Amino acid sequence: MGKKKDKDKKRRKGRSVPEPVAAAEPTPSAAGNGPSFDGDLSALLRVRPGTSLASVDADSTPGFASGDKEAGRAALAAMDEELSDLQERLYAQGRAGGNRRLLLVLQGMDTSGKGGVMRGVVDLMDPQGVVITAFKAPTEQEQQHDFLWRIERALPGPGLVGVFDRSHYEDVLIGRARRLADEVELDRRHQSINGFEQDLVDSGCVLVKCILHISKDEQKQRLLDRLADPTKHWKYNPGDVDERALWEDYQRAYDLVLERNSTPAAPFHVVPANAKWYRNWAITRILLEHLRAMDLRWPEADFNVHAEMARVQAS
Amino acid sequence: MGKKKDKDKKRRKGRSVPEPVAAAEPTPSAAGNGPSFDGDLSALLRVRPGTSLASVDADSTPGFASGDKEAGRAALAAMDEELSDLQERLYAQGRAGGNRRLLLVLQGMDTSGKGGVMRGVVDLMDPQGVVITAFKAPTEQEQQHDFLWRIERALPGPGLVGVFDRSHYEDVLIGRARRLADEVELDRRHQSINGFEQDLVDSGCVLVKCILHISKDEQKQRLLDRLADPTKHWKYNPGDVDERALWEDYQRAYDLVLERNSTPAAPFHVVPANAKWYRNWAITRILLEHLRAMDLRWPEADFNVHAEMARVQAS
Repeated sequence: MGKKKDKDKKRRKGRSVPEPVAAAEPTPSAAGNGPSFDGDLSALLRVRPGTSLASVDADSTPGFASGDKEAGRAALAAMDEELSDLQERLYAQGRAGGNRRLLLVLQGMDTSGKGGVMRGVVDLMDPQGVVITAFKAPTEQEQQHDFLWRIERALPGPGLVGVFDRSHYEDVLIGRARRLADEVELDRRHQSINGFEQDLVDSGCVLVKCILHISKDEQKQRLLDRLADPTKHWKYNPGDVDERALWEDYQRAYDLVLERNSTPAAPFHVVPANAKWYRNWAITRILLEHLRAMDLRWPEADFNVHAEMARVQAS
Repeated sequence: MGKKKDKDKKRRKGRSVPEPVAAAEPTPSAAGNGPSFDGDLSALLRVRPGTSLASVDADSTPGFASGDKEAGRAALAAMDEELSDLQERLYAQGRAGGNRRLLLVLQGMDTSGKGGVMRGVVDLMDPQGVVITAFKAPTEQEQQHDFLWRIERALPGPGLVGVFDRSHYEDVLIGRARRLADEVELDRRHQSINGFEQDLVDSGCVLVKCILHISKDEQKQRLLDRLADPTKHWKYNPGDVDERALWEDYQRAYDLVLERNSTPAAPFHVVPANAKWYRNWAITRILLEHLRAMDLRWPEADFNVHAEMARVQAS
């Protein structure tokens, strides 16, 4: 939760949806063409063999190197109409018996901006079609089950966009950083996740996994900002500093996640997140690219339109 | 789901919240002072003894008689900042151990605009703090329980705003209009609802019950609009015309709800809803008035702020 950002919603009624932009081959030069970027950002930020968090500059703005905060917000607003339209098509398909869904998994250190993505990105979509789940420390009931039990219960239904604020990845991240599980168990979990995610994708769910990547210095500043503002004290937890002391352990745990759980079916994207405007633009863009790829069409009427018009007229 | 409307979100960061507006005594003359209306709209639209749906003009715009669509949208946008701020305070209290919640119950005939309220009003709030539940025909599992079972399971947790798209009132409305239950059972349900709602309010939940009131002609036009637009066919169900044939039965069932279930603890508001802009303005205003009355304060820090600043600085 937090203060809302500027947002302009265009009136979409009666407008046609922009044609999907052809995805360019991702190349290093794709970074730098500013707000008119029309390449494949998902490919640009997708984890490759050998990607570690340290190899990604948290201050960088790939695909937007010549832009700034205002340009970023304008570019985000420019995607709103198409994003809303595609989400509505997905929802409509779900209502018409389709089985497709999309699940956005957000991971990141404390203060990395998961809540900011909810307000700046998720809020662009119709709330009726979105189901947000924030995963906290497991409850007693949840602890009595396998770690994926609570995840399966929170998966989005047909036509919905699910958003996970933290996820099953906590069970390998915290498990490793705080040494809550041994290596054998952690191995089992890494493998178990891959099987689970493959099944999920096979069942019609598009999985979009993003790590919001901030630097240790940025986290310090954000924690200090929270402490300096009485209206943000409720967001601060002294335990955050204890977690921060394990920063390097967490970074190593993330790197192992990138190595073991970024799969062809469900790749990870590392989103540089020191710049909040970039983070929101990038997540929106990645979502949009995945929705476009789903080739979402309006469901056909399963009734006789003219006959129904006559029935309504006569009623 | 549907097309999104214009929406301007002001950047609230660093701004103070406007002072609560003193509620004027609701009088007939409160209607008509346009967008600068500063009376108590909740009181103005609240059901009184003898109120029937037929006694409320669905085209009317109480509290806004001199306004129009553009003025309505501007007046709605002007409430966004305060609404977001109060919702965040409620959420913060919930995180800090508080037990208060708010539940918005939306009832209305097909096409009355419940979905429009989700997009135009509920979407003003941070999605992390909102839980929407749409109640459809009861599932087999739900039918094995008392009609309030599924309602209780969907109640918002501490700090959250729950929104019901249809509700337990369907069990007296459909039950009566379609003659699915006899008078003894319907009586039991009316009474059962009052006890349930009183307990809910006593437990710290503010209940805001609204009926979106459209005319039969307006419904016809909206159904025809859906049939005329292939991107809206998925919203149309031939069964809607069968329900429409029972219009008068439903109106009578609603009137009995107003008579029996508009209580001091949980009164109903009848919101004229032929004008979509008015409907959204009115619901937002009613929500805002109820949140203001909760006197929501930021939770106090339960840690030593200066000691924590030093810990973060040293980390």
